[in-house]
Amino acid sequence: MPSYTAPTKDLQFVLHDLLNVSQSTIPGYSDLETEFTSAVLEEAGKITSEVLAPLNVVGDKEGCSLENGVVRTPTGFQEAFDQVREGGWTGLDMPEEFGGQNLPAVLSTAVGEMFSASNQAFTMYQGLTHGAASAILAHGTDEQKQTYLPNMVSCEWTGTMNLTEPHCGTDLGLMRTKAEPQDDGTYKVSGQKIFISAGEHEMSKNIIHLVLAKIPGGPDGIKGVSLFIVPKFIVNEDGSVGARNGVSCGALEEKMGIHGNSTCVMNYDEATGYLLGDMHKGMRAMFTMMNEARLGVGMQGMAQSEVAYQNAVIYANDRLQGRDVTGVKNPDGPADPLIVHPDVRRSLMDQKSFNEGARAFLLWGAQLLDKAHRDGDKDADGLVSLLTPVIKGFLTDEGYNMTVQAQQLYGGHGYIEEWGMSQFTRDARIAMIYEGANGVQALDLVGRKLAVDGGKHVMAFFDLVKNFIKDNADNEALKADFLDPLKEASKDLQAAGMFFMQNGMKNPNAALSGSNDFMHLFGHVCLGLMWAQMAKAAHEALEGGASDKAFYETKLATGRFYMARRLPATKMHLARINSGADPVMSLAADQF
Amino acid sequence: MPSYTAPTKDLQFVLHDLLNVSQSTIPGYSDLETEFTSAVLEEAGKITSEVLAPLNVVGDKEGCSLENGVVRTPTGFQEAFDQVREGGWTGLDMPEEFGGQNLPAVLSTAVGEMFSASNQAFTMYQGLTHGAASAILAHGTDEQKQTYLPNMVSCEWTGTMNLTEPHCGTDLGLMRTKAEPQDDGTYKVSGQKIFISAGEHEMSKNIIHLVLAKIPGGPDGIKGVSLFIVPKFIVNEDGSVGARNGVSCGALEEKMGIHGNSTCVMNYDEATGYLLGDMHKGMRAMFTMMNEARLGVGMQGMAQSEVAYQNAVIYANDRLQGRDVTGVKNPDGPADPLIVHPDVRRSLMDQKSFNEGARAFLLWGAQLLDKAHRDGDKDADGLVSLLTPVIKGFLTDEGYNMTVQAQQLYGGHGYIEEWGMSQFTRDARIAMIYEGANGVQALDLVGRKLAVDGGKHVMAFFDLVKNFIKDNADNEALKADFLDPLKEASKDLQAAGMFFMQNGMKNPNAALSGSNDFMHLFGHVCLGLMWAQMAKAAHEALEGGASDKAFYETKLATGRFYMARRLPATKMHLARINSGADPVMSLAADQF
Repeated sequence: MPSYTAPTKDLQFVLHDLLNVSQSTIPGYSDLETEFTSAVLEEAGKITSEVLAPLNVVGDKEGCSLENGVVRTPTGFQEAFDQVREGGWTGLDMPEEFGGQNLPAVLSTAVGEMFSASNQAFTMYQGLTHGAASAILAHGTDEQKQTYLPNMVSCEWTGTMNLTEPHCGTDLGLMRTKAEPQDDGTYKVSGQKIFISAGEHEMSKNIIHLVLAKIPGGPDGIKGVSLFIVPKFIVNEDGSVGARNGVSCGALEEKMGIHGNSTCVMNYDEATGYLLGDMHKGMRAMFTMMNEARLGVGMQGMAQSEVAYQNAVIYANDRLQGRDVTGVKNPDGPADPLIVHPDVRRSLMDQKSFNEGARAFLLWGAQLLDKAHRDGDKDADGLVSLLTPVIKGFLTDEGYNMTVQAQQLYGGHGYIEEWGMSQFTRDARIAMIYEGANGVQALDLVGRKLAVDGGKHVMAFFDLVKNFIKDNADNEALKADFLDPLKEASKDLQAAGMFFMQNGMKNPNAALSGSNDFMHLFGHVCLGLMWAQMAKAAHEALEGGASDKAFYETKLATGRFYMARRLPATKMHLARINSGADPVMSLAADQF
Repeated sequence: MPSYTAPTKDLQFVLHDLLNVSQSTIPGYSDLETEFTSAVLEEAGKITSEVLAPLNVVGDKEGCSLENGVVRTPTGFQEAFDQVREGGWTGLDMPEEFGGQNLPAVLSTAVGEMFSASNQAFTMYQGLTHGAASAILAHGTDEQKQTYLPNMVSCEWTGTMNLTEPHCGTDLGLMRTKAEPQDDGTYKVSGQKIFISAGEHEMSKNIIHLVLAKIPGGPDGIKGVSLFIVPKFIVNEDGSVGARNGVSCGALEEKMGIHGNSTCVMNYDEATGYLLGDMHKGMRAMFTMMNEARLGVGMQGMAQSEVAYQNAVIYANDRLQGRDVTGVKNPDGPADPLIVHPDVRRSLMDQKSFNEGARAFLLWGAQLLDKAHRDGDKDADGLVSLLTPVIKGFLTDEGYNMTVQAQQLYGGHGYIEEWGMSQFTRDARIAMIYEGANGVQALDLVGRKLAVDGGKHVMAFFDLVKNFIKDNADNEALKADFLDPLKEASKDLQAAGMFFMQNGMKNPNAALSGSNDFMHLFGHVCLGLMWAQMAKAAHEALEGGASDKAFYETKLATGRFYMARRLPATKMHLARINSGADPVMSLAADQF
């Protein structure tokens, strides 16, 4: 069975050596002293590696079942969920007035990585609840907040997000679910929603569905969509759980992975719903949580890659096969361990350098979210909005590729289910799809985000890179291995942006044909920046006489690998982008 | 449910416009007139699309089951196998004296694509039989051939290949299965083999296992391995099926995909075996079939990509979502079809240009095999041996990526099993692993094949590219779009080879660290060459007044896409290769 070890030390490195969280002026950051974050991460490491990770395979094998409208979750999930609730892990970054701990997103994201890595399907039950609670927090009336949030923050009640319908996913303007206004101010919600994660189960006493629906007579398309709270059980005035509402699970989907999560077809039949936020402004309400939610999905991509990598390392050290061509390494054994072979190393370095770069990128993203939300910093908000599709799309695409690589190192044992490597790949696959498929992320990035505020935020990103390079120009230890390649890669990104500017106005397809490549190019530059910054931090720690030299030297070597072997992808993406729309768009639809 | 349409026209294009098979002097090729190959492909298209494709999902859902030693295959497999046998599809390229049709590999490969694409798990039953029969044909005594081949060519009896053991896959020198010589010249074979595809089932009257085992007292390691015929039922002297042999299926593996094929743990308990070929030369016997078998697996990578692509095209035309940014395309509908969106096109073009390039590459490889086997052409043999790891490794890696892209276009519907796109991805995954994991292919290419005969074959490949470019230098229609990019890519490949020559002698790891990149770089150059040649053929057809102009123009546009958008990957691979061993090898094993 695969194992999981929480990467506490690496997380601490990013929080403290790289981001210097406790020195930050962002409200709440001064509490994030090394000892405090260490204690939180250690505890999170325990519950995730000891309780959740062992249930990961169980969830995959058993899946969920539906009988007479009741959904059963896999053996052990209920008990584990109780432990998670009791440990207070469900409301880390929620306001104290509703039972949360009001911790910054940068720390809840660090903890979130462990939860996702150890058991993605399980963690989605609380993840969806968090998303629904955030929406109520942002758009609910005081009464709605009082009614739902305390129980949602504690996960006594869980939550769901209901967007997709059979005929529409990305294009929600086509939605058919209706909400008929009633005399008492409530609505009767009717329609079918699909792909509803955690839509029905018995692990919580109530399920608070957030449902997008159209109020008849409203504007056509996306502008006529409103958001509703539709509880599984109506909440009585005294806060107790009352009558069953007109909502039920019609079927469970059979999926490639995340079997432990119940993916439901949800039927709404004149279910009582309560308008959340403004009428017809449902999409806007959803968008306010989007950066956060997409960062969370980007994290899933990295998290599956991390746990798959950990198990690949174990196997590469244990499995004896072949001999080191430069000389036998295990003379007393029948063969050398896999890890002596250069292509095995290459694969492990691909994975390791991605995981650590991605972790830094995610926590930087979370820090920007904190700056935006806790400090009201508009620039941080603009920058993180720009980076969000990169975080989501690039980290889930690459994260998936890395789980495939980790699985590959097991040979045939990676293909059979016994070793658990197949599950990491199958589970990681969904992150490229949900919360906006990665093609939509690329479209969002190139078609929308680049031009926001006159391109101010992408210029701010370039300045950030430029200034880092300039400020460290005298640092010989960084120059050749880190700063020069970062500069090159950043130039490629600028050239791509220039191509879009020069050609996209005349022909939007000239830009959109390169959207996927631009997202990946941008992602590589971000990870290059992270590695350059981490290298600087590692050098400073070594110069400062850090006791754990090997740790920092490993960081430097891993960073050098990323810059030398991964960053050259930027030239390929630029060449593709520069080829414009013609190669992509020249066929008629019937020529495919 | 997904569908499959045999790409008969594309196959005919490669066979006749590109390879000009019927004009070739290779023995047997003069029969390959357009009408004849068309008739064969049409018939193969019928049985694969009408009989095998509908069973693909059934096989995935039902899988195989083991009860009291008996393995049940999915509903409908037995009947379909009878139809395949009756249609004479099992011995296309086998000698007539054993009931085959003695057709060239170039045609059986074209047919094979359809079988693999329509139902990979099903097709493996006959594929493994073909492999085992080829080994007996190459290494068996006359008596062994007479005893086994007629029934194996017809698939009345099926076959298997038994190499892997629990503790060894790639490194077969560690093997423990033993073969004790008996006084009557037979052997008693004992041991456990794993991952045995089609190891046990009831679809044939006998199963002829080919088993690698060690004869006690022989040389250590790989040099002491011999190959044995171990039939499930002993064959009586009169050719009838006799007593049950000491071989049984101990368990079925649960796998990520190819559920319709029975992947068995096989237990040999003093089973009667017959030495096949020379004592202690078992590995050499296996190697003689390796090019053919690996080409077959490369084909699987392309075939899954092809069928996934076909279904992605259907969905992209049917599914209405969003609007074309350059102007509404479907004004009467609620939205435009997916295919209007540039990134959807980009993905479909990635898939289409890969599939068609890969198809040409495979059939060219098969033609080289025919030249080597039917004409005794040593240069062709050397070239196809060089290209084999590229065909296997590059086409299965890329083929898998393309199934993932096709699945991605379905959004959430690609992740649930209902639409069948997940199965294509899960089935395609195995081709990267079996018949030598792709890392082993890369090692074979760089560590062995490049240097064979003093590098003669890789020089021959470069000459082939160079001469094609030179011979067509005056062709303005090809120059900018095809010849120039091919030249660039080929230079990158040569530069990589040069790096290996200059650095690999001092430090083998400097070459092996780049082995995976070299395999991919080589693959891109091969597909670039194929596309340049296909473009030439398409131009000639158009100039010759071909009636189906749209077909040839589509070929040109697809080729232009490959050259402009896929070929730039060579620069990335070269940059990685040029970074050498240091970034890859600098960590100690315990630093991972």
